[in-house]
Amino acid sequence: MTQAVRHDAMRARNLALVLGEVSARRSLTRAALAEITGLTKTTVSKLVADLIEAGLVVEAGTVRDGERGRPGVEVRVSGSQVAAVGLEINVDYLSVQVVDLARTVRLRRTQAVDNRSAQPVDVIARLRDLTAQAVDEAVDSGLRVVGGVLAVPGPVDLASGTVHNAPNLGWRGVPLSSLLRLPFPVRVENEANLAALGELWFGSGLPDFLHVSGEIGIGAGLVVRGRLFRGAHGFAGELGHVVVAPDGPPCRCGGRGCLEQYAGQDALLNAARPDPSQPDGAHPDTGHPNGVDPGTAQPGAAHLDATQLHAARPDGADPNTARRAQAARESAGRGIPWVLSRLEAGDERALAACERAGWALGVALCSAVNLVDPDAIVLGGIYAPLFPWIGEVVATTLTARLGQMRDIVPPVVVSRLGTEAAALGAAGQVIEQVIADPAALLHP
Amino acid sequence: MTQAVRHDAMRARNLALVLGEVSARRSLTRAALAEITGLTKTTVSKLVADLIEAGLVVEAGTVRDGERGRPGVEVRVSGSQVAAVGLEINVDYLSVQVVDLARTVRLRRTQAVDNRSAQPVDVIARLRDLTAQAVDEAVDSGLRVVGGVLAVPGPVDLASGTVHNAPNLGWRGVPLSSLLRLPFPVRVENEANLAALGELWFGSGLPDFLHVSGEIGIGAGLVVRGRLFRGAHGFAGELGHVVVAPDGPPCRCGGRGCLEQYAGQDALLNAARPDPSQPDGAHPDTGHPNGVDPGTAQPGAAHLDATQLHAARPDGADPNTARRAQAARESAGRGIPWVLSRLEAGDERALAACERAGWALGVALCSAVNLVDPDAIVLGGIYAPLFPWIGEVVATTLTARLGQMRDIVPPVVVSRLGTEAAALGAAGQVIEQVIADPAALLHP
Repeated sequence: MTQAVRHDAMRARNLALVLGEVSARRSLTRAALAEITGLTKTTVSKLVADLIEAGLVVEAGTVRDGERGRPGVEVRVSGSQVAAVGLEINVDYLSVQVVDLARTVRLRRTQAVDNRSAQPVDVIARLRDLTAQAVDEAVDSGLRVVGGVLAVPGPVDLASGTVHNAPNLGWRGVPLSSLLRLPFPVRVENEANLAALGELWFGSGLPDFLHVSGEIGIGAGLVVRGRLFRGAHGFAGELGHVVVAPDGPPCRCGGRGCLEQYAGQDALLNAARPDPSQPDGAHPDTGHPNGVDPGTAQPGAAHLDATQLHAARPDGADPNTARRAQAARESAGRGIPWVLSRLEAGDERALAACERAGWALGVALCSAVNLVDPDAIVLGGIYAPLFPWIGEVVATTLTARLGQMRDIVPPVVVSRLGTEAAALGAAGQVIEQVIADPAALLHP
Repeated sequence: MTQAVRHDAMRARNLALVLGEVSARRSLTRAALAEITGLTKTTVSKLVADLIEAGLVVEAGTVRDGERGRPGVEVRVSGSQVAAVGLEINVDYLSVQVVDLARTVRLRRTQAVDNRSAQPVDVIARLRDLTAQAVDEAVDSGLRVVGGVLAVPGPVDLASGTVHNAPNLGWRGVPLSSLLRLPFPVRVENEANLAALGELWFGSGLPDFLHVSGEIGIGAGLVVRGRLFRGAHGFAGELGHVVVAPDGPPCRCGGRGCLEQYAGQDALLNAARPDPSQPDGAHPDTGHPNGVDPGTAQPGAAHLDATQLHAARPDGADPNTARRAQAARESAGRGIPWVLSRLEAGDERALAACERAGWALGVALCSAVNLVDPDAIVLGGIYAPLFPWIGEVVATTLTARLGQMRDIVPPVVVSRLGTEAAALGAAGQVIEQVIADPAALLHP
């Protein structure tokens, strides 16, 4: 290693050390930074000057440093210069969030759109437009966007930015990073992981929790001591495929009786829908404790079955677009807002559908609590608006099944972030990256 | 912080740094240690001298340090002086393992004993005797035992060394650390966690796996990148209470249809036992795909039910000792060795019992793979000897349910450690602690 390379590496490490302390402690004088980091005051002053020049920190005002010391000028992370974008493609919406380096959300854009009947290229073009508008507005207010992360509903190859398989979009092997072509680097990541990180950085402030990200599929993100648990290959948290009943309805994953077949959005909509064969629109009682027999419930009409999934073309286009468009039209006006209106009207089928989904969610969460021992459970995605009708049955099921062996059953709480959680977590990841490696943004 | 305290803290950190590098790289010269740690050669020489004096490292021989350097003397961790004991109390046996600092197993003692019908004080006295004999032998061969860890089948309060609840022993709130009174410090830890660590340090050498520790209860330990995942409160890995069928037989945990009710030792023994109501000893077929209806199967006769568990006295003694002794006598000669003999004889009930247990284990492991994404699954405890009859159905169930969504289904392999896994992991934890903080063993 040459002298120059060694010096650059040390400078990069020290810049990260100083910015990390400033970010973690809100604001600090140069003298306090020298004491905390063990670096000399001269070195700290030089590093702070570089960080100020790059727009990462600003001087915040004069403070007296304890009783003895001379007054010092505190520095803090700058919220007015560097920013990150968080993006999300989900089944029912697109989202763009702009967050500055001080972690203030500066712009929020969410567009309702049915991506189930759309081609990847069309969805990506629409997201690019939405992002360009948001970035223009950010630039107008003096911000410089340095990077982005895109959340998608499915497992992702982090290195190439390719979504392996987003079954509810009908996408397989779509190279999103390269298709998106934005004027800054964009990484791609699973939405359930990012929604959990959104909750960590912009939500409840809990350090240990399992965040449930219910949409068509049901993902979960486990945060332990402020860090995301990813598993050996980055595919941890597939709560939607935890087994509720081993002989239950077949699932698109190849299993049977997965949670998604009881509590996923389509399963919930199907269960809430009036039965046309009954004059009063009511299903005959099936004898199951929750009024619906899980063994005979069918997956949502808009689901692809396994064969169709595998028939999807490698370019990511779906050969059954017409069929999917038809399914989308059929479910139009029958989304979560429709369920909410039925629940508010006291509709029995809608109430029973929530009871059943909540019971299944509780059963799957029992398995999750036994396996990963979270400190709390945060219900996000579609379960956030449904929480008044679903929260209690989830908590009751957990307590009934766990309360005897565990002194503390994790509380079940609602996420306040709604559909913005994953895009906020995505922007937050960029901010974390800048704080961890500020040298990448500095002139050499 | 005074100058002296600061110096001691720095010395402790540097001792750990040097011993850690020597342990990780097998053997190193002082010159190589100086280069790796960034410490001066004088400092390294002083630290190595202290570690040699404490019996933690030894000189290993002369090597030439590359082409240019002068010959140097390598040091390595000493296997002939400092040792640790790993202890286990399980339902059917006691185990003591002595491991030296170079991670060589020096003594192995396992005693078959039915602890279900015994009082905590009696079990502890027996373990103390077994340990004292092993320590005496270790001392005779020149070793100095510096600490121990005790594995127990249940969740533990790590700070006080008290086992919260070991339901299969009938123990609640037993302060094991203080009752054991050995001439060195002993910590207490859950056996499933320690068995996983035993597998990591003394077994397959895999860095990422879920280790299943099947006994009466079924625990699991998740190792990710060489570290144990404990969850928010240290209670992660309760695989035995993952839900296999939500309306299945009631479990002592308060839930229903937990894995333990299908694949735990008692469930397996019950299913393998001849049915006295049938002239040929065969159960009537229940129509379930595996020949046994999980919805009607009953937990093992030797199980306490929930009410009895809660009636256990706070001093840890069990009010139902007579009943438990009776149950133990009934199952005498009907343990895993009996099942193995039936399997080898091709007995259909024993084969069906394994088929059913393996299917249930596969279902629960599907949920585990979806939630925690392990790289491999290692079957230990009773599943190790049963592996030839159970391994394939576990793997087949996993592949059938996971193979469509995941490119790679984790392989199912057998642990080679048998009943020694947890005690070896326990001893290994002491070794890790010595390597991480050698200053604690040095004179000031």
